[in-house]
Amino acid sequence: MPASNEEVISRIEAASSSYSSTFDKGHLALPPAKKYLVLTCMDARIDPARAFGIELGDAHVIRNAGASARDALRSIIISQQLLATEAIVIVKHTGCGMLTFKNEDAYNVVETNLGVEAKKELEERKLDFLPFPELKQAIQEDVEFLRGTKLVKDEVPIRGWVYEVETGKTVRVV
Amino acid sequence: MPASNEEVISRIEAASSSYSSTFDKGHLALPPAKKYLVLTCMDARIDPARAFGIELGDAHVIRNAGASARDALRSIIISQQLLATEAIVIVKHTGCGMLTFKNEDAYNVVETNLGVEAKKELEERKLDFLPFPELKQAIQEDVEFLRGTKLVKDEVPIRGWVYEVETGKTVRVV
Repeated sequence: MPASNEEVISRIEAASSSYSSTFDKGHLALPPAKKYLVLTCMDARIDPARAFGIELGDAHVIRNAGASARDALRSIIISQQLLATEAIVIVKHTGCGMLTFKNEDAYNVVETNLGVEAKKELEERKLDFLPFPELKQAIQEDVEFLRGTKLVKDEVPIRGWVYEVETGKTVRVV
Repeated sequence: MPASNEEVISRIEAASSSYSSTFDKGHLALPPAKKYLVLTCMDARIDPARAFGIELGDAHVIRNAGASARDALRSIIISQQLLATEAIVIVKHTGCGMLTFKNEDAYNVVETNLGVEAKKELEERKLDFLPFPELKQAIQEDVEFLRGTKLVKDEVPIRGWVYEVETGKTVRVV
């Protein structure tokens, strides 16, 4: 059942009250202590801190639709050049929504749901939804994209993993 | 102390083993059960699930440098139009790195760290790092940006919050 707007507000207020009552990490510094960044999907079934063992303060966590490295480039540059992270971990996952459509499908859905003016805005923005037809190949392509740009140092370790939404396991592929 | 590449791999493997051993959420569906999305910063000091009370499977979580709505537009459209989320929660935070520099500074750091060819690539990509000088104003501007685009329905509730990295509290501002 969808949460109402009021329910979402109540949940955050309740979490804030409970979380802050035992919070003892106010001393953590801005730059990630363990100097790595994790790029994963926005998918609701992923809890990166617990599934990937990220302690509070240790790593940047970037999340977008499909864990796209292209889409994350701005954040990756800031993480590495301004906040000194050194390694990149990409985690895509089984059952990803990005495997289920093409750009053209998304453009059509936007037109159906939001109207022709919205589709025009997509076209003006040249918005690429960056879907992909195959999971491991998409990870490989993201690694190659990051290896190919001059905006990531050649010596930065880049690893690719698959999180299995069915089992809770994270399996290394690159 | 930064984690070595091997240490990062070991951490993920250990987390995967532990997390999957008690994992019982393999049945969760792709679309977020509570039909909302949370946009927050990649900052290492934020654990959205615990701080904002997000149960596994309930909400999309998008994270980038500064919790930028502009940068997240692709993911927001996919979340709302293809996976049926209805409400948007933006959470920026105190002590955000985006408050500390301007585009020009980031361009200069890239040139210093990565060389003139890297700076040229930034220019070719017209990369805007989207820094902001004031927190609440940045939240307001993101809300206005989302209200202004035809790619988000007018009736979608959009709320803005500030997470306090010093106290663990999340405080509503919009």
